[in-house]
Amino acid sequence: MAVYTEVSDEDVRSFVAQYPLGEVVSCKGIAEGVENSNFLLVTESGPFILTLYEKRVDPADLPFFLGLMEHLAANGVTCPQPVRARDGEALRTLCGRPAVLVTFLKGMWPRRILPEHCAGLGAGLASLHLAGAGFPLKRRNALSVQGWRPLFEASAPRADEVKPGLRDALAAELDHLERSWPADLPAGVIHADLFPDNVFFRDGKLSGLIDFYFACDDLLAYDVAICLNAWCFEPDGSFNITKARLLLANYARTRPLSAAELAALPLLARGSAIRFLLTRLYDWLNTPAGAMVRRKDPLEYLHKLRFHQQVRTVAEYGLDPASLGL
Amino acid sequence: MAVYTEVSDEDVRSFVAQYPLGEVVSCKGIAEGVENSNFLLVTESGPFILTLYEKRVDPADLPFFLGLMEHLAANGVTCPQPVRARDGEALRTLCGRPAVLVTFLKGMWPRRILPEHCAGLGAGLASLHLAGAGFPLKRRNALSVQGWRPLFEASAPRADEVKPGLRDALAAELDHLERSWPADLPAGVIHADLFPDNVFFRDGKLSGLIDFYFACDDLLAYDVAICLNAWCFEPDGSFNITKARLLLANYARTRPLSAAELAALPLLARGSAIRFLLTRLYDWLNTPAGAMVRRKDPLEYLHKLRFHQQVRTVAEYGLDPASLGL
Repeated sequence: MAVYTEVSDEDVRSFVAQYPLGEVVSCKGIAEGVENSNFLLVTESGPFILTLYEKRVDPADLPFFLGLMEHLAANGVTCPQPVRARDGEALRTLCGRPAVLVTFLKGMWPRRILPEHCAGLGAGLASLHLAGAGFPLKRRNALSVQGWRPLFEASAPRADEVKPGLRDALAAELDHLERSWPADLPAGVIHADLFPDNVFFRDGKLSGLIDFYFACDDLLAYDVAICLNAWCFEPDGSFNITKARLLLANYARTRPLSAAELAALPLLARGSAIRFLLTRLYDWLNTPAGAMVRRKDPLEYLHKLRFHQQVRTVAEYGLDPASLGL
Repeated sequence: MAVYTEVSDEDVRSFVAQYPLGEVVSCKGIAEGVENSNFLLVTESGPFILTLYEKRVDPADLPFFLGLMEHLAANGVTCPQPVRARDGEALRTLCGRPAVLVTFLKGMWPRRILPEHCAGLGAGLASLHLAGAGFPLKRRNALSVQGWRPLFEASAPRADEVKPGLRDALAAELDHLERSWPADLPAGVIHADLFPDNVFFRDGKLSGLIDFYFACDDLLAYDVAICLNAWCFEPDGSFNITKARLLLANYARTRPLSAAELAALPLLARGSAIRFLLTRLYDWLNTPAGAMVRRKDPLEYLHKLRFHQQVRTVAEYGLDPASLGL
């Protein structure tokens, strides 16, 4: 639930007056998104999403995020589009925060993941990776392998409060990942946070992608690994190989995966698991009990990490490399 | 921030299929309302509000609330209208909770109260009271004078944790209110919770009223007293006599206040103050620290109570009874 900044009706009215969108009809805070304040704003021109960027977003990154959304749309990806005010600028200020109005995207994110969702996701993710080619701005992934050790060290002294032995387990895994992380796989713009609440569907078909505020340059197959973790485990912790196969096969149909990418996938999935484990662990240990934020369980990702540690080949994700001609 | 029940996209789709409104386009939890779960639901027919009634609402009261919204609209009050499904029924079930789809109301509630808002509120409240006449259903006000002592007793043992001496101060006030509470003033349907977030404006003009889930039968002037408390104090605690005068004068222009109602107003305002003080005190003492709810400060209403205890006549609220011909 995310409305961190209270925006007054007067603030909204004078903000919207900067755009050629008519008068404000309604503005309601929405209980989605975790990093920013989001409002569903209706003007005489229709519905929009108003986002105020809170402290976790570096304002210097905003031109990358907004430019990327425009570049992706120009290359066929359905995603929110920053709306430019009368002066031609999309990035503005509201209540002392960077603020942007973006177009409203139809669809709902799936609460219960069905296999068809994973099929659509695979194709959509591959299209995103292809559409990102040629985007001129760059943004390093601060939450990739180089970023994990500082994050680990910030939580290490108290990690065992969450689970005895967690500190040593994470240290050993980090050593392994740092030694083995691949450097020569195809890279480009990745979404880096493509969880179900960022993927909209209508009638079972993917209708758009949102929330590009972790997007960056990194290995494309690492984005696939993030989705394997976010979409293919059941609430009881079991790995759904049917969903994984649909995700991977539909991805590969749009953007072929190389033999090297497939071979690296279990390692990339371990990396993705530790990335979310470490940020959740940090938040778990550093979120005041009274905060208006639901903390996410870091141990969900320890479980996923353990799973991928046992995986030897991509066949265990349901994909026969021979089916891809490899 | 209120989304207590997670509703899946599948649930929403099959719920909306009961109505002649086309397909679901979008459904987002909204961060408004404190008692229920609210969603802004867009279908091919336009936007609606989907409300799931949580445990604080007695399902037996829902026909009163829904019938009242229809009765008021039929008598000229702009308020959300329950939408009937194909079978003619508005009250349904979703995720095991009573649920209703209501029409979407244009406007925003004022975060910073200006005098013009109080003028519009006065006229709107009087219109509501006139429109309520003839509504056949009845609902007792469980949070009027007979309800305060049990509420007090539930919090009394720990009241002094919030402020030393609070228990004795409340006990003395309750004695006074129970002895002096008027019984013979004009009664009818009151809103009973007409705080700024329940009153929408467009361009400074009142555009509608929402959230009738405390509505009941009680003294009409008691509703005025609730608004005096909710709208006429500044954030620094000072009483704004200009706003009070505009509220009362514009109320009286639409529905004349009798001399007896005016004379009772300071006492009714004390009653309204203790009513919100007691419910906030109860919530303050009984809300777990980790709950995802922002607790409201009970002492804000102790301050308001102290103010009204010093008021002798309605002239101290800015209104000259002679100006009303009294």
